[in-house]
Amino acid sequence: MRFLHTADWHIGKKLNDFDLLEDQQAVFEQLVETAETHKVDAIVIAGDLYDRALPSEAAVSVLDNMLIKLNRDHGYPLLVISGNHDSAVRLRTGRAWYAATKMFVNTQVAEAFTPIELDGVQFFLLPYFEPFAVRDYFQDKTITNVAQAIRPIVAKMKTLFKPDMRHILVSHFFAAGSDHSASETKVNVGGLDAVPLDDLAAFDYVALGHLHNHHALHGEPKIQYSGALLKYAVSEAHQEKGVYIVDTETMDREFVPLKPKHDLIELKASYADLTAPAYYQQQDRDAYIGIDLTDTQVIPNVMAQLRQIYPRIISLRRENGVNAIKPLQERQRDLDPMSLLQTFFKDMTQDDLSAAQIKWAKAGLTTAKKEQA
Amino acid sequence: MRFLHTADWHIGKKLNDFDLLEDQQAVFEQLVETAETHKVDAIVIAGDLYDRALPSEAAVSVLDNMLIKLNRDHGYPLLVISGNHDSAVRLRTGRAWYAATKMFVNTQVAEAFTPIELDGVQFFLLPYFEPFAVRDYFQDKTITNVAQAIRPIVAKMKTLFKPDMRHILVSHFFAAGSDHSASETKVNVGGLDAVPLDDLAAFDYVALGHLHNHHALHGEPKIQYSGALLKYAVSEAHQEKGVYIVDTETMDREFVPLKPKHDLIELKASYADLTAPAYYQQQDRDAYIGIDLTDTQVIPNVMAQLRQIYPRIISLRRENGVNAIKPLQERQRDLDPMSLLQTFFKDMTQDDLSAAQIKWAKAGLTTAKKEQA
Repeated sequence: MRFLHTADWHIGKKLNDFDLLEDQQAVFEQLVETAETHKVDAIVIAGDLYDRALPSEAAVSVLDNMLIKLNRDHGYPLLVISGNHDSAVRLRTGRAWYAATKMFVNTQVAEAFTPIELDGVQFFLLPYFEPFAVRDYFQDKTITNVAQAIRPIVAKMKTLFKPDMRHILVSHFFAAGSDHSASETKVNVGGLDAVPLDDLAAFDYVALGHLHNHHALHGEPKIQYSGALLKYAVSEAHQEKGVYIVDTETMDREFVPLKPKHDLIELKASYADLTAPAYYQQQDRDAYIGIDLTDTQVIPNVMAQLRQIYPRIISLRRENGVNAIKPLQERQRDLDPMSLLQTFFKDMTQDDLSAAQIKWAKAGLTTAKKEQA
Repeated sequence: MRFLHTADWHIGKKLNDFDLLEDQQAVFEQLVETAETHKVDAIVIAGDLYDRALPSEAAVSVLDNMLIKLNRDHGYPLLVISGNHDSAVRLRTGRAWYAATKMFVNTQVAEAFTPIELDGVQFFLLPYFEPFAVRDYFQDKTITNVAQAIRPIVAKMKTLFKPDMRHILVSHFFAAGSDHSASETKVNVGGLDAVPLDDLAAFDYVALGHLHNHHALHGEPKIQYSGALLKYAVSEAHQEKGVYIVDTETMDREFVPLKPKHDLIELKASYADLTAPAYYQQQDRDAYIGIDLTDTQVIPNVMAQLRQIYPRIISLRRENGVNAIKPLQERQRDLDPMSLLQTFFKDMTQDDLSAAQIKWAKAGLTTAKKEQA
C-alpha cells in the first residue's frame, strides 16, 4: 500500500496579524491532489491539527471540512493522533463514530495498543504524551521522562506485532538528534526529553510530527518528520514544505513539495534597496516577509513605509542594530521616564508624541509605578 | 413508534460555585433507564445540550460520553438540534459521521428541510435560529423577526410532508403564550420574538426546547416543552423535571419525572428557625438551597453560619430587607468612602476589617477613583 504522511497543520494559526485559514485551505487542496495523483491508500496526520487547544469556530469549521473531504468525500482511511497543540478531549469528540469509515483519531496513550490494520500494515497511533500519562498507564513510578517512557510503550507494541505485516509507528515527539527548527540557531535535541532513535528500530517506518522541518532528522531512512503544512515562522523561510508518500511494499519514500498560496520569505537589504523599484520588482512581494534591515541609522516610520511596498511584512529586524540606541542609553540615564520616552520617540520616528499618545504613556507609567510600589 | 423528548441539558452549567457535571451525569443515567423501561425507539434532544458556546473540556467529555452511550452503546437513533446556548459550529463537528448510526445533529436552518424518517414518522429538526439566518435562506428581506421567519419555514416543510406519515417538528424557540420560567414573576412571552401557535398547527407534535418548565404551555396537547434536565435556578425550585414519552400511533404523551441526585429547594424562614435542629432536621439539607431570610436585623457572618448547616446554599435573599441599611444611608452620607466602608462592614458583620481587607479596600478605592477621573 501507499500512504501520505503529513503533520503539523496548525489550523487557525496566525502570522502576526495575518490569518492563515485561506492559505491553509489552499495548500490543503494541493495535498488532496497529491493524494490522488500518487494514488495513496491512506493518509497519516501526525498531530497538531489545530494550533491551539481552544481553536476558534472558524478553525473548527475549516478542519472539520478538511476531514470530511478526505474521509467522507474521497474515502481515504485517516490515521490521526493529537499533538501537543491539540486538546485531546476536544479533538476526540465524535471519535466513536469515525472508525466506521476508517477514520482513526487517537488522543490517549492506551489507544496506541490497538493497532490499525490496513492492507498488510499495522499502524500504531501513539498521540503526543506527557511522561506522567505513561507512568500512570504502566503503573511504573520510575518513569519520569520521555526517554524512559518510550521503552515500555515500544516493548508492548512489539508483543502485538504480526510477523507477516509491516509495522509503522505514528507519533508526535522530539526524536534524539533532530534539529529544532523553530529558531535560526539550530538546537540539537537530545537528552531525557527526546526519544532515543535506537528505541524506534523495531518499526519499518516512524511517521512523526512536532518538528516543522522535514530535514530535521538527517540520514534516517526509517524515521521521518513530514514537516509542517506551511512555513509558520521566519526561521522556516528556507525550508521546503510538503508531504511524504511512503510505499509499504518497498519502504521507499518520496517527498512531494506543496506550493503555498503566499510564500514566506526573508529579505536582508538596506532601506534604500528595499524601496528601489529595481530591487523590489524582483521580489515576491505577495509573500509573507521577514525583513532584515542592514541600515544602522534611524528611519522615520519605517514599518509603515515598507508596508506600502510589501503588504505582508510579518517581522522587521535590524541586522546591525540601530546607531541611535547606544548613545541614548548613556546620555539620558538621568531623565525622568516621561521625558526619556518623548526623546526616544522623537529620535526613532522624527515625530513628537501626539496628545493621545502622551495621555496613554502617562497612564501606563502611573500603572507601572503603582505595580512597582 | 415511541420516542423520548428531552431538551435543555445545559451540560457544564454551574449553580454559583457548584459544578453540576456529577448531578447531570446522575440524572442522565435515569434518563437512559427511562428510555429502556418505556422501550422507546428514538430520542429527541431539542437544543441547549451545552450551557456555553465554549464549553470546558470536562463538559465536552461528559456530553460526548452521553451521546456515545445513547447512540453507540444502546443504539437509540438520536434527533438533535442546537439551542441558543450551543455553538452551532462546535456542536456539528463530526456530524458527517453521525448519520451512519442514526444520530442526526442539525445546527443550520437549511438542514431542517431534509426530514428524518423513522418508523412512519417524519422528524423536522429545526435548530435555534436568528431571523437573519431565515432571511438569508429564503432571500426575503421582509423577514425581520421570529414570527415572520417561521411562516416560510413551515410552508416549505409542508411541501415535504408525506401524507401517510406523522409529522413532528423539533425546535428551540419561544412559543407565543408560554410562561417564561427563568424568573419568579411569570412573563408571558408573545409578540414578534415568539412563534405564534397557529403556525405550528400542521404538525402532529412539536417537541420544543428553550423554556425550562414543562408546563410552560398549558393545555396545548400537541406543542410541548420537555423542560430542562435539572432545576437550574431557584425560580425553578417548584417545577418537576423529567422527559416526555410520546407514542406516535396514538399521539399520547406521558411525562416521566426524573429524580435528581441533589434537589434544588427554596427555604423561607427566620435565622432562628433555620438554625434550630427541630427545623433543619426536617429539611433536605443535601439539596441546593435558595434561602429567603425573613429577619430584618443585621446577622453577623450569616452566610458562613448557615453553610455549616446547609452546605449547598446557592443564594441568600432578605424577604423583608435589612433594617440597618436605611439609617446608614442617611447618617453617613458625608463620610469619606473608606470610613463609610469600615462602618458598614462593622454594622453588617460585627467585625472590624482585617489588615488585609483594609489593604484590598484601599487598592480598590484608588482604582475606582482613577477610573472616575
